[in-house]
Amino acid sequence: MAVDETVRQHKFLLDESQMPTAWYNIIPDLPEPPPPPLHPGTHEPVGPEDLMPLFPMALIMQEVSQDRYIEIPGAVQDIYRQWRPSPLMRAHRLEKALDTPARIYYKYEGVSPAGSHKTNTSVPQAYYNAVEGISKLTTETGAGQWGTALAFACALFGLECEVWQVGASYDAKPYRRLMIEAFGGEVHRSPSDLTNAGRMLGANPANQSGSLGIAISEAVEAAVSDPTVRYALGSVLNHVLLHQTIIGEEALKQMAMAGDDPTLIVGCTGGGSNFAGLSFPFLREKMAGKINPRILAAEPASCPSLTHGVYAYDFGDTAGMTPLMKMHTLGHDFVPDPIHAGGLRYHGMAPLISHVYELGLMEAQAVPQTECFAAAVQFARTEGIVPAPEPTHALALAVREALKAKETGEETVILTALCGHGHFDLAAYDAYLNGRMEDEAVSEERFAAGLATIPVV
Amino acid sequence: MAVDETVRQHKFLLDESQMPTAWYNIIPDLPEPPPPPLHPGTHEPVGPEDLMPLFPMALIMQEVSQDRYIEIPGAVQDIYRQWRPSPLMRAHRLEKALDTPARIYYKYEGVSPAGSHKTNTSVPQAYYNAVEGISKLTTETGAGQWGTALAFACALFGLECEVWQVGASYDAKPYRRLMIEAFGGEVHRSPSDLTNAGRMLGANPANQSGSLGIAISEAVEAAVSDPTVRYALGSVLNHVLLHQTIIGEEALKQMAMAGDDPTLIVGCTGGGSNFAGLSFPFLREKMAGKINPRILAAEPASCPSLTHGVYAYDFGDTAGMTPLMKMHTLGHDFVPDPIHAGGLRYHGMAPLISHVYELGLMEAQAVPQTECFAAAVQFARTEGIVPAPEPTHALALAVREALKAKETGEETVILTALCGHGHFDLAAYDAYLNGRMEDEAVSEERFAAGLATIPVV
Repeated sequence: MAVDETVRQHKFLLDESQMPTAWYNIIPDLPEPPPPPLHPGTHEPVGPEDLMPLFPMALIMQEVSQDRYIEIPGAVQDIYRQWRPSPLMRAHRLEKALDTPARIYYKYEGVSPAGSHKTNTSVPQAYYNAVEGISKLTTETGAGQWGTALAFACALFGLECEVWQVGASYDAKPYRRLMIEAFGGEVHRSPSDLTNAGRMLGANPANQSGSLGIAISEAVEAAVSDPTVRYALGSVLNHVLLHQTIIGEEALKQMAMAGDDPTLIVGCTGGGSNFAGLSFPFLREKMAGKINPRILAAEPASCPSLTHGVYAYDFGDTAGMTPLMKMHTLGHDFVPDPIHAGGLRYHGMAPLISHVYELGLMEAQAVPQTECFAAAVQFARTEGIVPAPEPTHALALAVREALKAKETGEETVILTALCGHGHFDLAAYDAYLNGRMEDEAVSEERFAAGLATIPVV
Repeated sequence: MAVDETVRQHKFLLDESQMPTAWYNIIPDLPEPPPPPLHPGTHEPVGPEDLMPLFPMALIMQEVSQDRYIEIPGAVQDIYRQWRPSPLMRAHRLEKALDTPARIYYKYEGVSPAGSHKTNTSVPQAYYNAVEGISKLTTETGAGQWGTALAFACALFGLECEVWQVGASYDAKPYRRLMIEAFGGEVHRSPSDLTNAGRMLGANPANQSGSLGIAISEAVEAAVSDPTVRYALGSVLNHVLLHQTIIGEEALKQMAMAGDDPTLIVGCTGGGSNFAGLSFPFLREKMAGKINPRILAAEPASCPSLTHGVYAYDFGDTAGMTPLMKMHTLGHDFVPDPIHAGGLRYHGMAPLISHVYELGLMEAQAVPQTECFAAAVQFARTEGIVPAPEPTHALALAVREALKAKETGEETVILTALCGHGHFDLAAYDAYLNGRMEDEAVSEERFAAGLATIPVV
């Protein structure tokens, strides 16, 4: 058999000394500021003091900062440098399999200790809490990516870490829980009997399998009831998106190494932190007129907050305890189908991304999950990496665009965010490969019912 | 809280263009040649023609090559370059936790698509078979590392891949099987009813949980009965060890980047390929008088072929169908305790490593598994990587030596092989963390019974 013996460059690597030393805050560069979060009772803008029981002051100040760049503390840089800068990869073999003239690049965050981009924010969150003398962080986790990342970060700063995991995931995906425990974190099945919220909500048999909303309520309650404990959130908020921008800052340098300018940047959106992390630094360059890529969010057909939601003030959690945030939302009571991309099953979109979308600076498309897994299997069998279910949404749109380029002959350079590996999600591949995966049931009635729960502000 | 803000260098990275382009064959550099394998019937040395039903000619020639360097084909280099050169890491945080003056480095192979060093040989094995027109490879796998690596490699060269997995592992570790399937491989529970060996051995209820010996018999039978099919082995043989030497060749360059010479090189040994891969290039430099590290094999207390076995001709498989190889062996009938490091449960040691050991060029120590997992958990909570159970044996010895350095004040620079991540082995961590892991029962009577099965040659 004739085998192609060409040796090509696959990775565009930066040395540790080339790692960005600041995060990028897009807010001062936007043509108008994002609407502020409102107090759920008074409907007045939330002040820093309202958030102090939940977050350390440094993160609260980052949440409202007008500085374009925020320096990454030395201790955080030191930890990042174990796996960062993460590789930018050229998908030569996927291109060949698609027989496309498009050039496809992926920024791979699966090299982090927890296997996803989540460590980019868990490490600084643990750091700022440690500096302010906090002894423990609480959080919720669904499939477990975020809980793993926070447990890792807490281990490095000597913090305790207590995680409420959605009951259904706790039962079905024991390996994620075990990884959190290997890092020294403590995991509770939610609803638990450790909190008032858990006991109250758990009394209803319908709630026994849990939800992110319930788990958030438990983690928040555990944090606010002890002054040495704080809460940590893995997406949605401005400071979380800020920490992720190191992805895009690195990718800008790496695309320059590759000598290519992306015509399309595509990332998956759940809460939005992975997407913002890759795209905001490119959007800065685009707003400055230096490059002109399309910027595209890939969302699941089951939970399409950007393409099917409305832009309105809504609660961040199901129980309605958080501040009201102006965002694209399907309604805080909306419960999406139990698709395999658990990280994308959030009723709202990060307020900052929602604002950028309203400003017309980006696009969004929804993708059904079987198309995502078809792309994922093709990717695994050519590029050798089994992606987490979440980034398969972006891969599916990358494949669509690469095939379009084959038709039109238009020069297409795709950059996608491969935000994590799928080592703990192989049951989803099993379902797909053995014909047991169905596309989401998408009904306008269900969307309408969810939208009806959005409060009038 | 005072947080150390020092930014240190953690990774010593080579660019793709600095990747070694040849494998190192230690045989011509040894003071005497290793004894040849013998035909099980005639006890005469095995000739290339005896191996042709099993392996492609290129690999058979590598098995007996006297060339010091064998060029890596372009197509193999091209695939290696996706994740190679792999990182050499300095374990700053582990050093600090141990409060040791020793400097600890680890060469991390978990960045490969299959998560271990096994892809270093699965890719060239698939390549040489593809070039010679083979359409399918068969193999056995225990816990699944090797099966995953071979399925990945076969996917890239358009080969089918058929894997017989030890029944007990097939039942207990579904995620490894799912990963093989995601790469397009086919997995059978062994003993299966697809082969004569499987039907015959499977008829005995005692064999229902399977063994590597039975799985090898099935994979070999499936290969030899079809001229377009060959068999692939993941360790033990000379050509497999050869392919792994890229690890040590890279590490030599990376230790030079770090400006350090190791005083101790320690790797785990099952079949021996990971250990040989790291240590043989350093041994070349040691034999040339350029450096003088101790070279130490870490083996499990349950299966200590170097420290408790004898150096004799024995079969590679339990059924006694393979050529006789001169090696350190506990006897081909020896069944080790079901420890969590499945990759180290092999009755023999690679003939080439056995020969090097007999020549006095290396040392070996056996380690009980709870000491390994204690080291692994400390490593995970400081370095952020959850190691596979196999390399925890080397980590445990690295920790022993680092603590010794603290006592003696002797300058100690440790280089260890972290040959894979433990994402699919978290049940072992669960057992350790929750007090359900016991050390191996090591009885001289059992060792004696195994040794009694070694044939008289």
